[in-house]
Amino acid sequence: MKRIDVCLSPDLMHLYKTDDRTIVVVDILRATSCMTTAFAHGIQSIMPFESLEDCRSMKKHGYFTSGERDGKKVDGFDLGNSPFEYMNEKLKGHKIAFTTTNGTHAIARSIGAREIVIGSFLNLSSLSEHLSKGIYDVLIVCAGWKGRFNLEDTLFAGALIEKLIDKFSLECDAPHASLHLYRQAKSNLVDFLKEASHVKRLANLNIVEDIKFCLTMDKYSVVPVLKGSEFQL
Amino acid sequence: MKRIDVCLSPDLMHLYKTDDRTIVVVDILRATSCMTTAFAHGIQSIMPFESLEDCRSMKKHGYFTSGERDGKKVDGFDLGNSPFEYMNEKLKGHKIAFTTTNGTHAIARSIGAREIVIGSFLNLSSLSEHLSKGIYDVLIVCAGWKGRFNLEDTLFAGALIEKLIDKFSLECDAPHASLHLYRQAKSNLVDFLKEASHVKRLANLNIVEDIKFCLTMDKYSVVPVLKGSEFQL
Repeated sequence: MKRIDVCLSPDLMHLYKTDDRTIVVVDILRATSCMTTAFAHGIQSIMPFESLEDCRSMKKHGYFTSGERDGKKVDGFDLGNSPFEYMNEKLKGHKIAFTTTNGTHAIARSIGAREIVIGSFLNLSSLSEHLSKGIYDVLIVCAGWKGRFNLEDTLFAGALIEKLIDKFSLECDAPHASLHLYRQAKSNLVDFLKEASHVKRLANLNIVEDIKFCLTMDKYSVVPVLKGSEFQL
Repeated sequence: MKRIDVCLSPDLMHLYKTDDRTIVVVDILRATSCMTTAFAHGIQSIMPFESLEDCRSMKKHGYFTSGERDGKKVDGFDLGNSPFEYMNEKLKGHKIAFTTTNGTHAIARSIGAREIVIGSFLNLSSLSEHLSKGIYDVLIVCAGWKGRFNLEDTLFAGALIEKLIDKFSLECDAPHASLHLYRQAKSNLVDFLKEASHVKRLANLNIVEDIKFCLTMDKYSVVPVLKGSEFQL
């Protein structure tokens, strides 16, 4: 039986051997939800960057640039971190260079894994099918908030584990805890997350619609996979 | 209002500022449960060590030595990591040099905090009174398993937060998650933990009685506090 585990923070990645695993990177609010949305609307590829300046420099190579820090769009970038921005027709067929506070850091810490895919509630069932068909063990990497545990990414880990529980065995305690939390929360994710620190932080930025959207299940059927240095379908 | 937070692994300690906080170190199975039990039975002090050899060398200074690695007592040490060993009359009034796989590592990572105290289900209410009376914010440091998240320490964090919730505000998402998990588990902690990886590991070592004992609430009223390099009452 394949195995599934959860890394609750990118700062714990040194504890996991990943060269024989599929890593699912999760940053529900909002990086991986944006990436899923972009692919569902016809983006050709997304190249992740840790550094704002490296990301910005891709503009001259014809990329749209997407830059977010501390929940806000960075001046001079084409796009921010609201999923609604990625539904724009003018992005269709184009490439995006992408950097965020937590999501792209989690991706950077995952380099070296056998496979890296993007997870969000928006593509939960398609992702779960992809992992079921795959031959590798799975590690869900929660992007968290600047290294700290966060609830929304952990709830997503629980949701994915619930889908996969017949085909994967749970390693260690983090997947058990994620599943317990998700089962407590799933009847109303939005309410459950009202106390979450990141949700409060984002609500202060007036992006309640973004939050609701990012907690929508199975809106899209895309599974972005890292190929070379870019995510593609 | 004072604040309370939870660090889910010693490997996340770099994210927390601790010089103005009381740290509660927790290693339910079994280091901090043993320490609590030892003080309840008249031990004078416990000096924690990360290194087996440093710990062993204290024998010549008249200390009883306690050494555990991977759940097992280490050859040549006086004591292992079962709380029942610390009820021995012959230890009364003596000093112990103490090293374990996870607990003493968590203590070492906590050095520099304003105050360091020992937490376990066995001294839950006394500890909660101590923290309520104290003037400092609190950080609960879960020892985990070799850097990884574990359920039993997180459940203890939730139990302590439930006691303190009227006097402390919860920072970040880890205390919320701990409290949710504890409320799900508290009607039967032993059953809830049957799936936990550390509990399975220990059950294989035939120490089910140790596990049940370590999950007993409020058996003792001691609060061990680090004074200089030794825990004392």
